[in-house]
Amino acid sequence: MNAPMMRLAETLALPQPYLLFLGDTTERGYAKTAFGLADWAADRCVGEYSVAGCTVSTGLPQRNPADAVAAGAKALVIGVANQGGLIGASWIAALVEAMEAGLDIVSGLHVRLASIPALAEASRRTGQRLIDVRTPPANLPIGNGRKRTGKRLLTVGTDCALGKKYTALALHRAFVARGLDADFRATGQTGIMIAGGGVPMDAVISDFEAGAAEMLSPDAAPDHWDVIEGQGSIFNPAYAAVSLGLLHGSQPDVFVVCHDPSRKVILGMESFALPSIEEVIDLTIRLGSRTNPAIRCTGVSLNTSSMTATDAYAYMTAEADRLGLPVADPIRGGASFDALVDSCLA
Amino acid sequence: MNAPMMRLAETLALPQPYLLFLGDTTERGYAKTAFGLADWAADRCVGEYSVAGCTVSTGLPQRNPADAVAAGAKALVIGVANQGGLIGASWIAALVEAMEAGLDIVSGLHVRLASIPALAEASRRTGQRLIDVRTPPANLPIGNGRKRTGKRLLTVGTDCALGKKYTALALHRAFVARGLDADFRATGQTGIMIAGGGVPMDAVISDFEAGAAEMLSPDAAPDHWDVIEGQGSIFNPAYAAVSLGLLHGSQPDVFVVCHDPSRKVILGMESFALPSIEEVIDLTIRLGSRTNPAIRCTGVSLNTSSMTATDAYAYMTAEADRLGLPVADPIRGGASFDALVDSCLA
Repeated sequence: MNAPMMRLAETLALPQPYLLFLGDTTERGYAKTAFGLADWAADRCVGEYSVAGCTVSTGLPQRNPADAVAAGAKALVIGVANQGGLIGASWIAALVEAMEAGLDIVSGLHVRLASIPALAEASRRTGQRLIDVRTPPANLPIGNGRKRTGKRLLTVGTDCALGKKYTALALHRAFVARGLDADFRATGQTGIMIAGGGVPMDAVISDFEAGAAEMLSPDAAPDHWDVIEGQGSIFNPAYAAVSLGLLHGSQPDVFVVCHDPSRKVILGMESFALPSIEEVIDLTIRLGSRTNPAIRCTGVSLNTSSMTATDAYAYMTAEADRLGLPVADPIRGGASFDALVDSCLA
Repeated sequence: MNAPMMRLAETLALPQPYLLFLGDTTERGYAKTAFGLADWAADRCVGEYSVAGCTVSTGLPQRNPADAVAAGAKALVIGVANQGGLIGASWIAALVEAMEAGLDIVSGLHVRLASIPALAEASRRTGQRLIDVRTPPANLPIGNGRKRTGKRLLTVGTDCALGKKYTALALHRAFVARGLDADFRATGQTGIMIAGGGVPMDAVISDFEAGAAEMLSPDAAPDHWDVIEGQGSIFNPAYAAVSLGLLHGSQPDVFVVCHDPSRKVILGMESFALPSIEEVIDLTIRLGSRTNPAIRCTGVSLNTSSMTATDAYAYMTAEADRLGLPVADPIRGGASFDALVDSCLA
């Protein structure tokens, strides 16, 4: 972690290690917070916990709150997000149990933990804290469109929940490994929990969306890179407002398109076909050029978790030939990912 | 006013008549609330009031708060909005004076009136109310993209503050005059003050932006029209997120592009050229077709207030020939406006 992120982390002061809570989730796409923490902050996670009906797992040890406290956990992190960011009714008892065992509750959902009477009562009774990671900073500015110094990369997507955060984290890690001065800029609950700072872009009032993105990646040295976590998709009928405000305010020099080849429709919206990678490139350049006329696409990040390694590499090679761009899966890494990093830095 | 609007008005119960407050404003573009109320609710406005430095006027009688109360006023409405929606320091004394004279304060700004200690103290002392029109409804839904019944018109713009509300109000009035079943759907503070209801779209949390727009124009009879007030511009680097969420959630069948020929750059952003009308048509169709593939542009509404009548009509004729679309100034009305109404209903 670099200095600016550490300062933000001190402000948030999230209690660690975590116990990851999976609720009654049956779809991996809704558990991206838990999977992100397991992948990028596993050394600060003692295990996972769920309630009846849950069918997903991060692979971390399953522990109840008492066992987690014995293993050193300081907080239960709600690692799932259903549509609308609500707290499932079946989750309440588990969260109360966690507080009674001695854990704070950390949430990235829209709903405020303290607004749920049973949780507020348990917090008062046990002295454990209810921490909402998604509260945006106060006094966000209106966007001004001014060109800022330094270099910026934004991950964009054909939809939400298919790898934009992973891709940004992997690119940031690769940039740092090459000796570059780079910051990972988190825009969602999981990224903020991993980084210890950032702006929860989908919780920002829409009038301030671009201004919040401008604040997130301030003026920097000419050779400094901000690697900015994307949100949603400009093709998603529910979340495009978030994506466009982030695109305009980030004024990225380069962007990487994130895509899951196994997804054919927008998550949760069967009547909306996923856009093609080419459509995302074209519209991102058209919209992004409003605040950075030099914007360009430097590659594609594929989530090939549903494929065998052989199939995945064959598919990525074919897609790279078809698109004329580097194509990589950052989870698989390797030479194709190195080529994607080269392209971003070219 | 039609029945649904009256029901919303009863919920808000704004005290009327109004005294319009202009602050220390020097640019008409920032006083659009006051001008909107003077034009569309003049029978419910007793006059205007300002502080030192103000150079704009609605043309209504200038009255101080005591005179306004004597003339029947029940509330002072803050009729100006500077960038960011803040309360100017020089305004506080005037607002306290108004409460001491017996007026409630009605505001459409981002900042909550009660968060300003001097106003909160004066409210407690005088018993006058502080009413924030921009508080969005609770429990807004996430967008679902589902096609709704009924017909929808959205006004869009080359920028903010150049006639989208006026155009929607005028088209709604014309639709009703032709005997159609139509609702004006207000999306900003002034429209809500005029209509007595609506959703303040720029105050909505960005994740709910499209969902709020979906809620604003619900399923209706097949021949019912919702005439929806646009916000911002998809080309405005600060506010495009608001505009895109509203466009996606409104799923308009038709849209009218609003433009001010005297404006060459984005309001408050000298380095951003205004887009052309054709660019706005093209990008609105491209983005709007995501939720309504049948979307089409049915005309252009020009704000020709800076021109003589002769120049304005000559310009509108030339623009109509150039674009192949009806072009009208709803403030001037006349045959060209009738042609625009015909085009929207064709």
